[in-house]
Amino acid sequence: MVAPLKVGIAGLGTVGAEVVRLIEQQSRTLSSRCGRPVRVVAVTARSKAKKRGLDLQGIDWSKNPLELASDPRIDCFVELMGGAGEPALSAIDTALKAGKSVVTANKALIAKHGLKLAKAAEQFGGALNFEAAVGAAIPIVKTLREGLAGTSVNRVYGILNGTCNYILTRMEQEGLSFAECLKDAQRLGYAEANPSFDVDGHDTAQKLAILASLAFGTKVSQSAVYVEGISSIAPEDLRAAADLGFRVKLLGVAVRTAKGIEQRVHPTMVPKTSSIAQVMGVTNAVTIDGEGIPPITLVGPGAGGAATASAVVADIADVARGIRALPFGRPVERLRAIAKAPMERHEGGYYIRLMARDLAGTAATIATRLADQKISIESIVQRHANGVDVVQTAGKAAPVPVILITYATSEDAVHRALDAVQRDKVISGRPQVIRIEKN
Amino acid sequence: MVAPLKVGIAGLGTVGAEVVRLIEQQSRTLSSRCGRPVRVVAVTARSKAKKRGLDLQGIDWSKNPLELASDPRIDCFVELMGGAGEPALSAIDTALKAGKSVVTANKALIAKHGLKLAKAAEQFGGALNFEAAVGAAIPIVKTLREGLAGTSVNRVYGILNGTCNYILTRMEQEGLSFAECLKDAQRLGYAEANPSFDVDGHDTAQKLAILASLAFGTKVSQSAVYVEGISSIAPEDLRAAADLGFRVKLLGVAVRTAKGIEQRVHPTMVPKTSSIAQVMGVTNAVTIDGEGIPPITLVGPGAGGAATASAVVADIADVARGIRALPFGRPVERLRAIAKAPMERHEGGYYIRLMARDLAGTAATIATRLADQKISIESIVQRHANGVDVVQTAGKAAPVPVILITYATSEDAVHRALDAVQRDKVISGRPQVIRIEKN
Repeated sequence: MVAPLKVGIAGLGTVGAEVVRLIEQQSRTLSSRCGRPVRVVAVTARSKAKKRGLDLQGIDWSKNPLELASDPRIDCFVELMGGAGEPALSAIDTALKAGKSVVTANKALIAKHGLKLAKAAEQFGGALNFEAAVGAAIPIVKTLREGLAGTSVNRVYGILNGTCNYILTRMEQEGLSFAECLKDAQRLGYAEANPSFDVDGHDTAQKLAILASLAFGTKVSQSAVYVEGISSIAPEDLRAAADLGFRVKLLGVAVRTAKGIEQRVHPTMVPKTSSIAQVMGVTNAVTIDGEGIPPITLVGPGAGGAATASAVVADIADVARGIRALPFGRPVERLRAIAKAPMERHEGGYYIRLMARDLAGTAATIATRLADQKISIESIVQRHANGVDVVQTAGKAAPVPVILITYATSEDAVHRALDAVQRDKVISGRPQVIRIEKN
Repeated sequence: MVAPLKVGIAGLGTVGAEVVRLIEQQSRTLSSRCGRPVRVVAVTARSKAKKRGLDLQGIDWSKNPLELASDPRIDCFVELMGGAGEPALSAIDTALKAGKSVVTANKALIAKHGLKLAKAAEQFGGALNFEAAVGAAIPIVKTLREGLAGTSVNRVYGILNGTCNYILTRMEQEGLSFAECLKDAQRLGYAEANPSFDVDGHDTAQKLAILASLAFGTKVSQSAVYVEGISSIAPEDLRAAADLGFRVKLLGVAVRTAKGIEQRVHPTMVPKTSSIAQVMGVTNAVTIDGEGIPPITLVGPGAGGAATASAVVADIADVARGIRALPFGRPVERLRAIAKAPMERHEGGYYIRLMARDLAGTAATIATRLADQKISIESIVQRHANGVDVVQTAGKAAPVPVILITYATSEDAVHRALDAVQRDKVISGRPQVIRIEKN
């Protein structure tokens, strides 16, 4: 019999407890798949007394994560405590420097300290696996790291936050406001009491930074990601999008451009017929555009105890089998630094919604201001809030929504044109601007 | 400098030529990702003289595949000749028995001789990678073999043949007949002159047998797959499906049931809102239902030179990195034999389309015959071929289509009920029966 892989788990929340259960349940399959048994030999968590419905008989209880990480009896340290800093950081570092392999689901830590940890993994020969950190059970890390090893990636983009997609889906399907849907999401446990990390796009940005590194060989850098959340999206935008053949999704997009790698998170209009547009509710999805091949899209649960545990156990199985891919697919010293993409130089199509004070005059003004910036208009719609075209209301006092779709232009040009329109005092309020991502 | 991985390629068709090109183009990335260079050192193909637009300078030309497979200068033998038998079989066997790793895109060979070859790979320590054999660039083999190593799979199903999906998509979107669409597919190069292998479901069956083995730990067995093609599907079926909230796809389905693993390929009604229903044209997709987690769907190009080459090069990169997963995820001796699922015991919902001779009498007869078999009807629609409900035509002489959706029942019961209806002589022609797959 080959020696078992001895696993230590720090953190016994929903995911940790599920990992212990899954390794026990799947022990025969794992042993058959890996050519050796996988055994949880030690665990640690904040409270030993807490009821978890777990049988921990025969499993040691370590005093703390650091002690577990340096325990000579374990081969693989599994970090499921979370948090971008201590004690997770030191524990993982300690385990790697002791030559152990590490599996973690901690996106914040990998986005922030991934490079340093990857260096330690390289130097001491352990694996550093983090499939569960992005898209839970969706095998996106493995796909970028191994499955597309020979393909040059031009773009990777996706729905990486289930909370935002749930909110946008309900807003679209039921015509509700952002605030109403957020409240419901909180009630159902899909959103935190303080929802900012999710709805303002930071969670997506951390995951995107990890995917961009794997796809493009750049240094993981969350601060290089442009971030915009979904709180400004109104039901009118979703309605107009639908009429124009689009859906609005919060996307994380990393794309190779002539000016370098752009990393950005923002509400995005995607064609209704694209794979990514079909993804509803809390589901996540990632699309990869490889050089010369049609897009590949992976869809699945982006969160949840069982889905996350599934990815963690697969990562542990890779360790047991002796699979050692470099954490970011390439040696850390080969990863290139990445600067924050200046969004004013972003190029693409735009959706613009304005409230025109006087329709006839405003349309002419807008057309002129856009033409001044050499922006071509693909379509223009004027309508009541209820969706009925309202050319007949031209000249009335109440502001009328005007919706424009532009051909590809620069963000800079759009801002200059809209600033001019605003100075012309023909619109009320601020224009709504949403970027379009073509598939 | 670490020693390069020395690759020999047998077969320089579209895929082979693209692999040579890709390895050359991506040489720096591959070397960085794998920790060692990847180099094509020898090739062989039927004609040396053929123009391929390839620079083969510095690459040896082997006399034949067997010579290349046993060439002591190569570490990795890449088989891209195709064909379920010789010379591919002996060449791969020879390479494996010489301790080399093998990469192949040959689904027919893996479906037929995969077990024998996997045994040789296990015994002599080489890898046997075949990601490109199913779904080309879609990383489905890796996902089942490694990415879901810790998850018990309950069902895996997918659109595995682009030709069929192209035909069904055009039939649905343009109301054309199967024959018309097939002719177009042949003209566009999406279907062979002899289309039977694709449209009768055999291509899908080979791929399904491979996926089932990876998912369930069964012995690959194409003959254990129930197979039915798409040639009987009529535009009326697609129209009726759309009205009832379904789409028709040729699915390969492998599912764990109380009676064992069922493997089947047939036209299938899938809910219009499912991920798999969104997959149009030549695109492929696979959905995996893991125990306790929401479905994971992988979508992408299932064929094409560049997409297939992408998977082949990724497989070569895994060899270069030293990744050695067992070919079917588990040792061959642990794979369980699988019997052909008796379809008469299949259970599920059914779509039934009948041509009623006399509407009033027929409806009553059908209802009675189904009730005799304890089959419950979820919905019943009677209509003209043009889609207008035709209750008012009851009693007329021309046959009228009657469309039924049943609740879950057994195939046996459906056949018995329809046989009885046919004996009652209230319908003209044979009933159309399409199985429903719920997500």
